[in-house]
Amino acid sequence: MFRDRLPVFPQTVQVDSRNHLVLGGVTASALVERFGTPLYVFDEATLRGQCSAFIGEFSARYPDVAVSYASKAFLNRPFARLLAEEGLGLDVVSGGEVAVAKSAGFPPGRVYFHGNNKGPEELKLALDWGVGRIVVDGFDELRLLNILAGESGLRQDVLLRISPGVDPHTHHHTTTGIIDSKFGFSLATGQAQEAMKQALEATNLSVIGLHMHLGSPIFEMEPFCQGIEVGMQFAAAMRDHHGMELREFSPGGGFAIQYTVDAPAPPISAYAEAITGALRKACETYGFDLPKLMIEPGRAIVGRAGVALYSVGAIKEIPGVRKYVAVDGGMGDNIRPAIYGSRYEALVAGSVESDGKERVTICGKYCESGDILIKDIELPLVKHGDIIAIPASGAYCIPMASNYNVVPRPPIILVNDGHAELWRRRETIDDIMGLDVF
Amino acid sequence: MFRDRLPVFPQTVQVDSRNHLVLGGVTASALVERFGTPLYVFDEATLRGQCSAFIGEFSARYPDVAVSYASKAFLNRPFARLLAEEGLGLDVVSGGEVAVAKSAGFPPGRVYFHGNNKGPEELKLALDWGVGRIVVDGFDELRLLNILAGESGLRQDVLLRISPGVDPHTHHHTTTGIIDSKFGFSLATGQAQEAMKQALEATNLSVIGLHMHLGSPIFEMEPFCQGIEVGMQFAAAMRDHHGMELREFSPGGGFAIQYTVDAPAPPISAYAEAITGALRKACETYGFDLPKLMIEPGRAIVGRAGVALYSVGAIKEIPGVRKYVAVDGGMGDNIRPAIYGSRYEALVAGSVESDGKERVTICGKYCESGDILIKDIELPLVKHGDIIAIPASGAYCIPMASNYNVVPRPPIILVNDGHAELWRRRETIDDIMGLDVF
Repeated sequence: MFRDRLPVFPQTVQVDSRNHLVLGGVTASALVERFGTPLYVFDEATLRGQCSAFIGEFSARYPDVAVSYASKAFLNRPFARLLAEEGLGLDVVSGGEVAVAKSAGFPPGRVYFHGNNKGPEELKLALDWGVGRIVVDGFDELRLLNILAGESGLRQDVLLRISPGVDPHTHHHTTTGIIDSKFGFSLATGQAQEAMKQALEATNLSVIGLHMHLGSPIFEMEPFCQGIEVGMQFAAAMRDHHGMELREFSPGGGFAIQYTVDAPAPPISAYAEAITGALRKACETYGFDLPKLMIEPGRAIVGRAGVALYSVGAIKEIPGVRKYVAVDGGMGDNIRPAIYGSRYEALVAGSVESDGKERVTICGKYCESGDILIKDIELPLVKHGDIIAIPASGAYCIPMASNYNVVPRPPIILVNDGHAELWRRRETIDDIMGLDVF
Repeated sequence: MFRDRLPVFPQTVQVDSRNHLVLGGVTASALVERFGTPLYVFDEATLRGQCSAFIGEFSARYPDVAVSYASKAFLNRPFARLLAEEGLGLDVVSGGEVAVAKSAGFPPGRVYFHGNNKGPEELKLALDWGVGRIVVDGFDELRLLNILAGESGLRQDVLLRISPGVDPHTHHHTTTGIIDSKFGFSLATGQAQEAMKQALEATNLSVIGLHMHLGSPIFEMEPFCQGIEVGMQFAAAMRDHHGMELREFSPGGGFAIQYTVDAPAPPISAYAEAITGALRKACETYGFDLPKLMIEPGRAIVGRAGVALYSVGAIKEIPGVRKYVAVDGGMGDNIRPAIYGSRYEALVAGSVESDGKERVTICGKYCESGDILIKDIELPLVKHGDIIAIPASGAYCIPMASNYNVVPRPPIILVNDGHAELWRRRETIDDIMGLDVF
């Protein structure tokens, strides 16, 4: 039933009287006719809705909240402008993300610069532009940043990224807050305390709080509660021993979204309830006024808003073994199934509800056996030229896309209220060859 | 000892009197000073040497050999030109690869067009350009190609890709010749025979032989010998029942290279001996004149020629746990460790041989815990600014590179005889943002 699959599609999704998929008021077939496939469609109402839901759910429960979008899930200039309009901050992790935000006119004061290996050029770029906070990740960076801020005549606001030793029970590639991590200062080893001491003594830095990030996607509340308790206990010790003032506290992001019917994600309200509750409790326990609460969703803002549309090409049935339905994209535009074993739903955009079903495997056109988008999914009978829609494709697909097999990367379309607008044009072979010196 | 690591480096590698790494007669530090990091360095002598070694080893053992380079391992225009000069053919798998070959002036008659889902536009492009062979992968393509060739007034030479049901014992993502594969016509199901019948009846196609590809990388000879025996038995049946003429036969590619000291790869001569021996034997068994033997190396031509150079940034020691050495690249330019669990060697370019050693983990700058290039490797003591060289990086790194975290992709430099020349310039943030509609 399509009804079951609604939570994995953008909030404006509809099925028209011809049983066709409609996104943002535009039928998928009209989008494909105009823009071709593969095509990534982003629904503006869902993007803005997720922004205001995060602000709303957390602000309803806590007096001072800032929501900062984690750019690595997906960033381009039009989207940065949309986020600015919605009042969000921006987490960036590279000079490139700083440059995009700057070019989009994003307010620098609402930018947080994260990352385990920020280079001197990147830090200078960020300082010159006036980013609000730099989230210091290691001792090397602490020394370097203090020097660079001094050279720029600044006293830079910083948060320290601590590694609380909490396992969020997600894929080992995306587990970040355990002790064996390239990110942050470990509490268990005493390095976080040493870093705090050095940061408070650094004449060109002003420590305003703590940040942690446990991993992604996190389906449980307990890791957030544990992380907050551990982090606030550390904050209290730092206040008592070193006079740290806790003005901001961030338990990070990593909020789960629903990719498949059988794996629902908690509502934003559940995260808000758990996180604000844990923070209030810890403030009471350790005698803190409530600090500003930073929340850093990435996937949870953009994931559900995106739908990938592909055209069916070759269909190959191996009797008694498997039926392969090949589409005109694949691991070049969505590497997540190959790298994380990620699962997705799919439907045939021209026959959303259908009685006839068969089990197929949706593969891509890339010259590699691992180029499977969805193994074993029930679909209506498909034929050459049908459009396949894969929902929950807004996060970590386009950002990790490659030119494998010299295939240009797909365009991104924003849909809203019956209108479609190009957000990113289709890459061309000439774009790719343009880098050659020939 | 550096001596042990010679087989994973390009054949021109040297260590100068100051203990610095030298590639193609140029010190790594000079390359970095001129071109920055991350940097991919390709050694021209190794590229040309591998081309002539494949041609030489096979031709010494068999009268009629053609070596066709598998572009998906890495392709750009200057490299296509080099391959043409060396007398190789070119395997392409997309309209993009066709376009690059065409733009480079590659002789179309030496081009083989592979792929499980070639679109009509791609096939038309290939037919119009006059590609030598199209390797037909499925029934849909067989019908489509026959129509398109007719429309172009051509009788197109084709090979059929058969799926022989042989397991090459490699990563499941890169195992292609088993029955449950998106590639080719299965022998076991009878589909290969049906396809042959249809292809021989297709008025605009001329069947000139068979192709198979078992997977990659294949360290053993037995899968090739098995595949050839099974394929030639099928060829004999097709000759006897349907009058097929076997003019060309390809056991594919997938030849292994050495990535680490503890995993040596067989020499090209071993593959040549096994493959030509098995083909001669099968020809005798089944009463064939020797067909043209097609050999399709990709990784084995380009892998060893490439060395990735990175600069060390943040160093993070977690006492009793791990020492992370962060470089200025990572999973954005080399996704192979994350996707296949691939292992690499590394050395410090400024102190190739050194007594002091420590165990470190080389991680990248990308905002993800899975961004580890090499877990647990012995290196001399490293410091900020040191250059790390990762050899055997010529294949499947640049082609699968992304702009994750809005990081521009690295340039490629060709070195030879003391000279360095830019093959592909460094991507810029403006290149990336240029696709935005803003």
